[in-house]
Amino acid sequence: MNKQLQISNIRNVLIRLEETILFALIERVQFRRNPVIYAPGAFADLDETESLVGYLLHETERIHARMRRYTSPDEYPFFDDLPEPVLPELRYDDNPLHAHPVNLNRNVWASYTEDAIPLICAPDDDHQYGSCAVADVTCLQAISKRIHYGMFVAEGKYRKNATQFDQLVKAKDAGSIAEAITDAPVEQQVLERVRRKAELYLQELNASTDEYHIEPEVIVKLYRTWIIPATKEVEVQYLLKRG
Amino acid sequence: MNKQLQISNIRNVLIRLEETILFALIERVQFRRNPVIYAPGAFADLDETESLVGYLLHETERIHARMRRYTSPDEYPFFDDLPEPVLPELRYDDNPLHAHPVNLNRNVWASYTEDAIPLICAPDDDHQYGSCAVADVTCLQAISKRIHYGMFVAEGKYRKNATQFDQLVKAKDAGSIAEAITDAPVEQQVLERVRRKAELYLQELNASTDEYHIEPEVIVKLYRTWIIPATKEVEVQYLLKRG
Repeated sequence: MNKQLQISNIRNVLIRLEETILFALIERVQFRRNPVIYAPGAFADLDETESLVGYLLHETERIHARMRRYTSPDEYPFFDDLPEPVLPELRYDDNPLHAHPVNLNRNVWASYTEDAIPLICAPDDDHQYGSCAVADVTCLQAISKRIHYGMFVAEGKYRKNATQFDQLVKAKDAGSIAEAITDAPVEQQVLERVRRKAELYLQELNASTDEYHIEPEVIVKLYRTWIIPATKEVEVQYLLKRG
Repeated sequence: MNKQLQISNIRNVLIRLEETILFALIERVQFRRNPVIYAPGAFADLDETESLVGYLLHETERIHARMRRYTSPDEYPFFDDLPEPVLPELRYDDNPLHAHPVNLNRNVWASYTEDAIPLICAPDDDHQYGSCAVADVTCLQAISKRIHYGMFVAEGKYRKNATQFDQLVKAKDAGSIAEAITDAPVEQQVLERVRRKAELYLQELNASTDEYHIEPEVIVKLYRTWIIPATKEVEVQYLLKRG
């Protein structure tokens, strides 16, 4: 029923999420950096402690939680004070995960706001706070989903080599687990595919406007320096918890 | 400050919205039709009268209203019972519109759910209701924005030919207004650009999977039979109201 959760289908899910992530980032980079929307309490009328993007993400997660989004094994929220689902919970008989899930969204938030936004967006402020925050929420949710798919990736790798991983996990040897899950040629393929897609999807926009310009290489860099390593961090932590 | 509202910039806004609309539609068509998510009351635990997509759109608009989205002259909601903005309202000194705004979102909703979804999505049900509804909300908001930009387009056309339009509006001659605002070569250009973009953005996806396939021509058809005529309908109604 839920093909997305099948180990055999993980590669397709990750490839398909590339479009979701690229489209979302391309929407975001049409706006400037707008640092004020990430500053806690900067819009105090709305939320005294949260940033504008944090407020929108939190409210969005509240709605999605009521619609049972976070009962799905491939969905993890950024906030932990969400309401219970209003819709009856679904049973995920096809959930292949064998451990308590890992949630690294705190890191996703920090990397996105502190590193990714300054890297991909033009500096300064264009006052498009609302549209910008909406784009941010889409980016954060898409990238978070991709990174947490590392658990499905790890489960697949574990099943192919259970004995080896059992030993490493028993020894709590995170370094060797990280080595064992690394497949450099596959990472290279991902980066090449992302480069090709970024060139394709940015071609029209980069040609048609002056002010709206992003180098495909910047998106490749996001994958190389953040999205891929963060996915691997989820893989390692999942395997350690799998025990 | 808000370049999006400048008459001289309308063409660029509409061109840029093509990416937003195409990316959103491409996210939606990865899921099947899922008719149950448009059926009023089908998820009664959540909302006894609203559909799942209607519920999510309504809740999303409530948040965006508090963030003052609908105080902007280029943003129109689908629901009319939204909360007041919590953030202090911005003054839009650069708002070029000279009439009470037109809101045709009731038609946008009907055309989207009854015509567009059956046209673009594969039939049947894949149980991905939540992801699907999230994609629907993005599509509805993007297409609604494009269609209601017709008011800015109409204002630009009016300013170039005020005397002619004053006469037609005085005579309440909707047919002749529709004729006067129609620029067939420009419509043809839009359709050709949409075709080129749809081919570009679907190239990778149509090549990489079997089950996920959409013809670029289907997106062109959406523009030709719905999005362009609906924009013109907004233009005519705006000019009649402009009085």
